[in-house]
Amino acid sequence: MELNWVEYIGLAAGTLTTAAYLPQVYKTWRTKAVGDISLVMYTAMTAGVFLWMVYGILLKAPAVIAANAVSLALVGGMLRLKLKYHNAQTPPKP
Amino acid sequence: MELNWVEYIGLAAGTLTTAAYLPQVYKTWRTKAVGDISLVMYTAMTAGVFLWMVYGILLKAPAVIAANAVSLALVGGMLRLKLKYHNAQTPPKP
Repeated sequence: MELNWVEYIGLAAGTLTTAAYLPQVYKTWRTKAVGDISLVMYTAMTAGVFLWMVYGILLKAPAVIAANAVSLALVGGMLRLKLKYHNAQTPPKP
Repeated sequence: MELNWVEYIGLAAGTLTTAAYLPQVYKTWRTKAVGDISLVMYTAMTAGVFLWMVYGILLKAPAVIAANAVSLALVGGMLRLKLKYHNAQTPPKP
Protein backbone atom coordinates (compact mmCIF):
# COMPACT_ATOMS: atom_id res chain seq x y z
CA MET A 1 0.00 0.00 0.00
CA GLU A 2 1.44 3.34 -1.03
CA LEU A 3 0.75 6.43 1.05
CA ASN A 4 0.67 9.98 -0.28
CA TRP A 5 1.89 12.97 1.76
CA VAL A 6 -1.59 13.71 3.11
CA GLU A 7 -1.66 10.23 4.68
CA TYR A 8 1.76 10.94 6.25
CA ILE A 9 0.23 13.96 8.03
CA GLY A 10 -2.56 11.66 9.20
CA LEU A 11 0.03 9.17 10.45
CA ALA A 12 1.90 11.91 12.34
CA ALA A 13 -1.40 13.07 13.86
CA GLY A 14 -2.38 9.50 14.73
CA THR A 15 1.02 8.75 16.25
CA LEU A 16 0.74 11.82 18.50
CA THR A 17 -2.88 11.39 19.61
CA THR A 18 -2.32 7.66 20.18
CA ALA A 19 1.07 7.88 21.89
CA ALA A 20 -0.37 10.67 24.06
CA TYR A 21 -2.28 8.10 26.14
CA LEU A 22 0.90 6.12 26.92
CA PRO A 23 2.30 8.49 29.61
CA GLN A 24 -1.19 8.70 31.18
CA VAL A 25 -1.59 4.91 31.25
CA TYR A 26 1.94 4.53 32.66
CA LYS A 27 1.37 7.23 35.32
CA THR A 28 -1.94 5.72 36.40
CA TRP A 29 -0.58 2.15 36.36
CA ARG A 30 2.37 3.27 38.52
CA THR A 31 0.50 5.48 41.02
CA LYS A 32 -2.87 3.70 41.08
CA ALA A 33 -4.28 7.22 41.65
CA VAL A 34 -7.40 7.92 39.58
CA GLY A 35 -9.22 10.49 41.71
CA ASP A 36 -8.64 13.37 39.28
CA ILE A 37 -9.49 11.25 36.19
CA SER A 38 -13.03 11.51 34.77
CA LEU A 39 -14.87 8.17 34.42
CA VAL A 40 -17.38 9.71 31.99
CA MET A 41 -14.52 10.94 29.78
CA TYR A 42 -12.94 7.49 29.37
CA THR A 43 -16.31 5.77 28.88
CA ALA A 44 -17.32 8.16 26.08
CA MET A 45 -13.79 8.14 24.61
CA THR A 46 -13.74 4.33 24.38
CA ALA A 47 -17.07 4.30 22.50
CA GLY A 48 -16.01 7.22 20.28
CA VAL A 49 -12.61 5.80 19.32
CA PHE A 50 -14.33 2.54 18.36
CA LEU A 51 -16.65 4.47 16.01
CA TRP A 52 -13.68 6.38 14.50
CA MET A 53 -12.12 3.02 13.68
CA VAL A 54 -15.34 1.92 11.94
CA TYR A 55 -15.36 5.25 10.04
CA GLY A 56 -11.76 4.66 8.91
CA ILE A 57 -12.63 1.16 7.70
CA LEU A 58 -15.61 2.50 5.71
CA LEU A 59 -13.49 5.30 4.16
CA LYS A 60 -10.54 2.93 3.63
CA ALA A 61 -8.31 5.48 5.39
CA PRO A 62 -5.28 3.56 6.75
CA ALA A 63 -4.12 6.31 9.15
CA VAL A 64 -7.56 6.54 10.78
CA ILE A 65 -7.85 2.75 11.17
CA ALA A 66 -4.35 2.18 12.60
CA ALA A 67 -4.35 5.15 14.99
CA ASN A 68 -7.76 4.31 16.43
CA ALA A 69 -7.09 0.59 16.84
CA VAL A 70 -4.10 1.37 19.08
CA SER A 71 -5.96 4.23 20.82
CA LEU A 72 -8.80 1.83 21.58
CA ALA A 73 -6.42 -0.48 23.44
CA LEU A 74 -4.90 2.39 25.47
CA VAL A 75 -8.17 4.25 26.21
CA GLY A 76 -9.83 0.95 27.09
CA GLY A 77 -6.85 0.24 29.37
CA MET A 78 -7.34 3.60 31.12
CA LEU A 79 -11.04 2.83 31.57
CA ARG A 80 -10.12 -0.49 33.18
CA LEU A 81 -7.58 1.20 35.52
CA LYS A 82 -10.14 3.87 36.47
CA LEU A 83 -12.79 1.23 37.26
CA LYS A 84 -10.25 -0.91 39.15
CA TYR A 85 -8.96 1.86 41.46
CA HIS A 86 -12.11 4.05 41.52
CA ASN A 87 -13.45 2.65 44.78
CA ALA A 88 -10.00 2.35 46.36
CA GLN A 89 -9.75 6.15 46.61
CA THR A 90 -9.75 7.93 49.95
CA PRO A 91 -13.35 9.11 50.37
CA PRO A 92 -13.76 12.91 50.35
CA LYS A 93 -13.94 14.55 53.78
CA PRO A 94 -17.48 15.56 54.83
CA MET B 1 -23.17 20.56 2.22
CA GLU B 2 -24.75 17.11 2.02
CA LEU B 3 -23.45 14.24 4.15
CA ASN B 4 -23.68 10.55 3.32
CA TRP B 5 -24.20 7.89 5.99
CA VAL B 6 -20.48 7.25 6.37
CA GLU B 7 -20.00 10.91 7.36
CA TYR B 8 -22.81 10.48 9.94
CA ILE B 9 -20.79 7.70 11.58
CA GLY B 10 -17.83 10.08 11.57
CA LEU B 11 -19.99 12.77 13.18
CA ALA B 12 -21.19 10.35 15.88
CA ALA B 13 -17.56 9.34 16.52
CA GLY B 14 -16.44 12.97 16.59
CA THR B 15 -19.28 13.98 18.90
CA LEU B 16 -18.29 11.24 21.38
CA THR B 17 -14.50 11.75 21.31
CA THR B 18 -14.96 15.52 21.51
CA ALA B 19 -17.72 15.61 24.14
CA ALA B 20 -15.66 13.11 26.16
CA TYR B 21 -13.29 15.90 27.23
CA LEU B 22 -16.13 18.03 28.62
CA PRO B 23 -16.66 16.09 31.90
CA GLN B 24 -12.87 16.01 32.41
CA VAL B 25 -12.53 19.77 31.84
CA TYR B 26 -15.51 20.41 34.15
CA LYS B 27 -14.16 18.09 36.87
CA THR B 28 -10.70 19.67 36.73
CA TRP B 29 -12.09 23.23 36.59
CA ARG B 30 -14.25 22.47 39.64
CA THR B 31 -11.71 20.58 41.79
CA LYS B 32 -8.49 22.30 40.61
CA ALA B 33 -6.92 18.84 41.22
CA VAL B 34 -4.52 17.81 38.45
CA GLY B 35 -2.12 15.51 40.31
CA ASP B 36 -3.32 12.34 38.55
CA ILE B 37 -3.43 14.01 35.09
CA SER B 38 -0.44 13.48 32.76
CA LEU B 39 1.15 16.70 31.45
CA VAL B 40 2.88 14.80 28.63
CA MET B 41 -0.48 13.34 27.53
CA TYR B 42 -2.16 16.72 27.12
CA THR B 43 0.88 18.29 25.45
CA ALA B 44 1.10 15.52 22.83
CA MET B 45 -2.70 15.42 22.45
CA THR B 46 -2.91 19.16 21.72
CA ALA B 47 -0.26 18.86 18.99
CA GLY B 48 -1.85 15.69 17.57
CA VAL B 49 -5.41 17.03 17.47
CA PHE B 50 -4.10 20.11 15.62
CA LEU B 51 -2.52 17.83 12.99
CA TRP B 52 -5.76 15.78 12.67
CA MET B 53 -7.56 19.04 11.90
CA VAL B 54 -5.01 19.83 9.16
CA TYR B 55 -5.47 16.27 7.80
CA GLY B 56 -9.25 16.77 7.70
CA ILE B 57 -8.84 20.07 5.83
CA LEU B 58 -6.55 18.41 3.25
CA LEU B 59 -8.97 15.48 2.77
CA LYS B 60 -12.00 17.82 2.82
CA ALA B 61 -13.57 15.54 5.48
CA PRO B 62 -16.12 17.68 7.38
CA ALA B 63 -16.46 15.31 10.37
CA VAL B 64 -12.71 15.25 10.93
CA ILE B 65 -12.39 19.05 10.70
CA ALA B 66 -15.33 19.87 13.00
CA ALA B 67 -14.57 17.26 15.66
CA ASN B 68 -10.92 18.21 15.92
CA ALA B 69 -11.52 21.97 15.99
CA VAL B 70 -13.71 21.56 19.09
CA SER B 71 -11.37 18.93 20.59
CA LEU B 72 -8.48 21.35 20.16
CA ALA B 73 -10.28 23.96 22.29
CA LEU B 74 -11.07 21.41 25.05
CA VAL B 75 -7.71 19.61 25.07
CA GLY B 76 -5.93 22.97 24.98
CA GLY B 77 -8.13 24.03 27.90
CA MET B 78 -7.11 20.93 29.88
CA LEU B 79 -3.45 21.68 29.12
CA ARG B 80 -3.92 25.23 30.47
CA LEU B 81 -5.65 23.92 33.64
CA LYS B 82 -2.87 21.34 34.17
CA LEU B 83 -0.17 24.01 33.79
CA LYS B 84 -2.09 26.44 36.04
CA TYR B 85 -2.62 24.04 38.96
CA HIS B 86 0.45 21.80 38.40
CA ASN B 87 2.65 23.61 40.93
CA ALA B 88 -0.21 24.20 43.37
CA GLN B 89 -0.35 20.47 44.22
CA THR B 90 0.57 19.17 47.65
CA PRO B 91 4.18 17.99 47.24
CA PRO B 92 4.64 14.20 47.63
CA LYS B 93 5.77 13.07 51.07
CA PRO B 94 9.49 12.17 51.25
